[in-house]
Amino acid sequence: MIKVGIIGATGYGGAELVRLLAFHPAAKVFAATSRSYIGKSYSEVFENFRHEEELVLQEENLALIAKKCDVVFLALPHGIASKKVTKEVLQDTRIIDFGADFRLKDVDSYEQWYGVTHHSRNLMDRAAYGLAEIYREDIKKSRLIANPGCYTTASILALYPLIKEGAIHHEDIVINAASGVSGAGRGLDLGLHYDEANENVKAYKVGTHRHTPEIEEHLSKACGKDVVLSFTPHMVPMNRGILVTANAKLAIKAAHEDIFALYEKYYGSEYFIRLTKKGISPETKWVKASNFCDIGFHIDERTGRIIVMSALDNLVKGAAGQAVQNMNLLFGLEERAGLDLAPVFPA
Amino acid sequence: MIKVGIIGATGYGGAELVRLLAFHPAAKVFAATSRSYIGKSYSEVFENFRHEEELVLQEENLALIAKKCDVVFLALPHGIASKKVTKEVLQDTRIIDFGADFRLKDVDSYEQWYGVTHHSRNLMDRAAYGLAEIYREDIKKSRLIANPGCYTTASILALYPLIKEGAIHHEDIVINAASGVSGAGRGLDLGLHYDEANENVKAYKVGTHRHTPEIEEHLSKACGKDVVLSFTPHMVPMNRGILVTANAKLAIKAAHEDIFALYEKYYGSEYFIRLTKKGISPETKWVKASNFCDIGFHIDERTGRIIVMSALDNLVKGAAGQAVQNMNLLFGLEERAGLDLAPVFPA
Amino acid sequence: MIKVGIIGATGYGGAELVRLLAFHPAAKVFAATSRSYIGKSYSEVFENFRHEEELVLQEENLALIAKKCDVVFLALPHGIASKKVTKEVLQDTRIIDFGADFRLKDVDSYEQWYGVTHHSRNLMDRAAYGLAEIYREDIKKSRLIANPGCYTTASILALYPLIKEGAIHHEDIVINAASGVSGAGRGLDLGLHYDEANENVKAYKVGTHRHTPEIEEHLSKACGKDVVLSFTPHMVPMNRGILVTANAKLAIKAAHEDIFALYEKYYGSEYFIRLTKKGISPETKWVKASNFCDIGFHIDERTGRIIVMSALDNLVKGAAGQAVQNMNLLFGLEERAGLDLAPVFPA
Amino acid sequence: MIKVGIIGATGYGGAELVRLLAFHPAAKVFAATSRSYIGKSYSEVFENFRHEEELVLQEENLALIAKKCDVVFLALPHGIASKKVTKEVLQDTRIIDFGADFRLKDVDSYEQWYGVTHHSRNLMDRAAYGLAEIYREDIKKSRLIANPGCYTTASILALYPLIKEGAIHHEDIVINAASGVSGAGRGLDLGLHYDEANENVKAYKVGTHRHTPEIEEHLSKACGKDVVLSFTPHMVPMNRGILVTANAKLAIKAAHEDIFALYEKYYGSEYFIRLTKKGISPETKWVKASNFCDIGFHIDERTGRIIVMSALDNLVKGAAGQAVQNMNLLFGLEERAGLDLAPVFPA
Repeated sequence: MIKVGIIGATGYGGAELVRLLAFHPAAKVFAATSRSYIGKSYSEVFENFRHEEELVLQEENLALIAKKCDVVFLALPHGIASKKVTKEVLQDTRIIDFGADFRLKDVDSYEQWYGVTHHSRNLMDRAAYGLAEIYREDIKKSRLIANPGCYTTASILALYPLIKEGAIHHEDIVINAASGVSGAGRGLDLGLHYDEANENVKAYKVGTHRHTPEIEEHLSKACGKDVVLSFTPHMVPMNRGILVTANAKLAIKAAHEDIFALYEKYYGSEYFIRLTKKGISPETKWVKASNFCDIGFHIDERTGRIIVMSALDNLVKGAAGQAVQNMNLLFGLEERAGLDLAPVFPA
Repeated sequence: MIKVGIIGATGYGGAELVRLLAFHPAAKVFAATSRSYIGKSYSEVFENFRHEEELVLQEENLALIAKKCDVVFLALPHGIASKKVTKEVLQDTRIIDFGADFRLKDVDSYEQWYGVTHHSRNLMDRAAYGLAEIYREDIKKSRLIANPGCYTTASILALYPLIKEGAIHHEDIVINAASGVSGAGRGLDLGLHYDEANENVKAYKVGTHRHTPEIEEHLSKACGKDVVLSFTPHMVPMNRGILVTANAKLAIKAAHEDIFALYEKYYGSEYFIRLTKKGISPETKWVKASNFCDIGFHIDERTGRIIVMSALDNLVKGAAGQAVQNMNLLFGLEERAGLDLAPVFPA
Repeated sequence: MIKVGIIGATGYGGAELVRLLAFHPAAKVFAATSRSYIGKSYSEVFENFRHEEELVLQEENLALIAKKCDVVFLALPHGIASKKVTKEVLQDTRIIDFGADFRLKDVDSYEQWYGVTHHSRNLMDRAAYGLAEIYREDIKKSRLIANPGCYTTASILALYPLIKEGAIHHEDIVINAASGVSGAGRGLDLGLHYDEANENVKAYKVGTHRHTPEIEEHLSKACGKDVVLSFTPHMVPMNRGILVTANAKLAIKAAHEDIFALYEKYYGSEYFIRLTKKGISPETKWVKASNFCDIGFHIDERTGRIIVMSALDNLVKGAAGQAVQNMNLLFGLEERAGLDLAPVFPA
Repeated sequence: MIKVGIIGATGYGGAELVRLLAFHPAAKVFAATSRSYIGKSYSEVFENFRHEEELVLQEENLALIAKKCDVVFLALPHGIASKKVTKEVLQDTRIIDFGADFRLKDVDSYEQWYGVTHHSRNLMDRAAYGLAEIYREDIKKSRLIANPGCYTTASILALYPLIKEGAIHHEDIVINAASGVSGAGRGLDLGLHYDEANENVKAYKVGTHRHTPEIEEHLSKACGKDVVLSFTPHMVPMNRGILVTANAKLAIKAAHEDIFALYEKYYGSEYFIRLTKKGISPETKWVKASNFCDIGFHIDERTGRIIVMSALDNLVKGAAGQAVQNMNLLFGLEERAGLDLAPVFPA
């Protein structure tokens, strides 16, 4: 049994990880830490786990937990992980980081967008970007996985085959995205108060959202050019789910089936990616509580553009599920282990 | 592998059953019928099952399906099941009926509340009421299971230990209940249109809801007296979940721990019932997408009454989950098979 | 123009008051105070008032504001109003208090339920309970109005004619109520965080909610007996609205039209009370953003009980609207002034 | 008093019109028609109007109603209005059409996008496009007003000053929009069923939404070039509200205050348009139940693009409120008459 540690286990991402691991055939949560709930049983914080009173939240001590666990998931504020993760820690355990610290290979860009100093530049070449559908082999070889952001996962998966194959221009990409409120976390904030978020839609962090450089880095890598795109996230009144609507200029003359073939080339054997049929748009409700990412597109001949939509559950494929997928790769397990979950509908 | 048939598979209850059986270790959906979607793949109707294109909806033919399946789940309008289920069908297969036709032993009462004729009075003594926590042994011995109603399950489980042990008066019981909208099904109706149901609370079928006699019958049986109670259901704007708030006069002088002990006597070893600690009220969010029923209570010394609350997911413990639990009992499987699901939160 | 002061203007109740007064024909907000937003324009705190930048939030100073305003609305934590309101203040202005300090004539009961000391016992006989449909004449003569609680308003209005006329037993009354989340205020709290309150129903403060003695006091006064009732509030996922479902034993043999006549006797000429027709249950969606209270009932012959439902908007008839109604009475205005609002649907 | 007729009064748009006219100082609903509810009082169909039993729904007869009413609002399926509205009707009354039939000056384009034949090409030059902030003088002179679509209003208002002044390129405009469910009307449809629309986001009619040519026509007119843009609408789980996020390439080098000045030039004296301050994004919650359109923008120097957001209530400024605004212009009333409504929050 793989011994799992979770640093920062009492956010929504951590709770989802605990849920997914609860019935994982080969892994078990061995240690979980929290800042606010030290000494409490996990089931007091998340009463859905009322049967699991034995998991008691402890103080964060990465060095110690690393020695005892085979893998440690980190859910820490940015700037902290790069301080805590050291060569010693990586000798003792494997790290799967939910945060941003090891995501951007361009560390200067990281420091600029995040406004903090990176403390582990030397570890960057050991970090793998945990998007299995694209970087599976890198992940298998690494002990330090940067789990991608939720918007990022949906955005990169939506556009990767197109940009990789030169089917779209690398300029003039416009991504709009909508996320459920859980994407903003469990911390108290007036904007996340029920009456403020309910029955409301807003764009936020317009032009400044930190998932932007992450999307750009990986799309740039795919096409070999500098992708600079416009990314606008929105908050919509629902608990879970992300829908990305990406809009790009077609660089080739292509029919629907041509583009579909292109997606199949990359994702045809990917269990967690489901391509929707012509005329069917992905909806967040069809992926709830599962690790699927649904992708569909429409070719707009009037404008010469393609609109690609992708839907995923921000807490699963956008966070904890993808992390478990990465863990499975690290340990040579079946990639679907613990993730064989039909989406819950209606939910 | 147990071969499963589902008659009426395209309601929310049917879809939840398909979800639960998708990863059941010992059962597999073999045939599924529909009135509206004959010939379509199940994944076209419920796109959350996008990977399961091989399940194609067929026309209803119970006699034929009974011959081919080890167990058939029925989701039919009331009055129809009692017509379709015959001795021959029960020789060929086992039936688990989501509807009301075989729930009330008092068939006259059934005909009065439902306003239809019962066509299988002769089968009534072969039917077991599928509330495993109370009637487990009966279920094991039967081939015809009347799966309880959603409100009923929550209401009976909330009050059973109290009334069985004489801790509450059998008169003056007042039950208020709140259900998510999926309880009303997938059929189109103005009251279930998004803008009509959203941001709204209403009581409905006041004094006339058909789960009333079902609750009364089983509580009467438990205490040996005629229980006549007031039941008022409400619709609240959420997808899933039922909360029952039952209010009864205490017949004994008892402290919280006394009543708690009484609940433990009946439910202490029941996996799917979770008793909440003193001061903690059950909430529907902690049981979503799981087969749990959470129960808690408050003794109100000012009024000499006890308020018992129970929360469950109307589509799982209130329908498909309970049905799978019954199927497991019928086939001598582990009762939790396929139901080892941590509640999804937030959902 | 009546000069209005608002102490504690930045809660939901205060904002609703500002909205209602924005187009009141005879009153204008002259001063508004806040603890958290001193110096900010009101439109920065509530952007729906983007056009009203001239209203700037000031520090609380009741004595001073009392001298300058014809009426002052208080929205203060309990225990504070009874300290701040003095004879001098009442000489300078009229007070309409959103809080509980002057609601209970039984001050001992107040101190017990609220756990604080009352500082103005001497003013209690000058306070009128601001439920115009019952105490209109008292209100007109007073300068200190205790604006009723939201649950209280809905509960008293639902049962008053019945208990006053002896149509129901004063014992065994069971009230269940459901409120939208705005009833809990704008203060941050994990239970009010979007993902925690959304898609969830729970009972809370079971047996201990402070509106209980307020309901009991006025129903007792109406029937001349000590009413001790069971009150259980619930939180449901919507912004606004309260639905009360009151359940009582009938003391008389009566048909629907008899009871209807009885309601008409008391409310027939009350503009803000709308009786629903037989078979129609009140729903919160029909009263949104208006000062109406809809009342309907069902006689349950099986149980000998009557179920009365009342629906109102907790921020209007349950708070700010009722306060404006009281202000209108205090100044001899048309009672509907500023409240001529058709309910907003869907909202 | 202006006598008002409403053809098709029982959709959400019609109900909102009845609400707004209920307290209009100079207009009164005189006749209202319906297909489904003939003979019923309006208050039976929309119980929020419980006090207005005298308005009884009648059969549609435009010719007759035109003779009796000073203005008639039409809410008819497309293709019908162009058949019903004739020169004779326009002699008898003024028409304000909620539908699309008279919106597009390019009637060929209309026929292509809507797939129906236009029956009144001869009346097209008498029709004014009812967007008062841009075409106020045309509206005053006309007797046939094409009330703009909801998405269209928000989109045109967002981009008009920029494109008119040459601040953005007329190519490469990408508009994403999100609408509450009421935008899809009150007709039953599985996609609008509560459990299907709740907790879900989807794009729909991708590349084919009929508001597209309407937006293009007016932006083209403004800049004198053929604007061909990409428009993608989304449905989000809330009752009301539209948020448009328009993304365009800047054609000039401009600071935030320069662009702001440009908006002020066009909208500075427009009561119903509110410009948000730098860094503040419009949110639908701040305009609920009001006729305001809030507009804000962000200049993205990295991409050389500008993101403009506009928020309005689809049933008010996007439909009934704008229609009343147009009626006020037609009759020389104060443009704000009946529309002096502070937004309702939270709602």
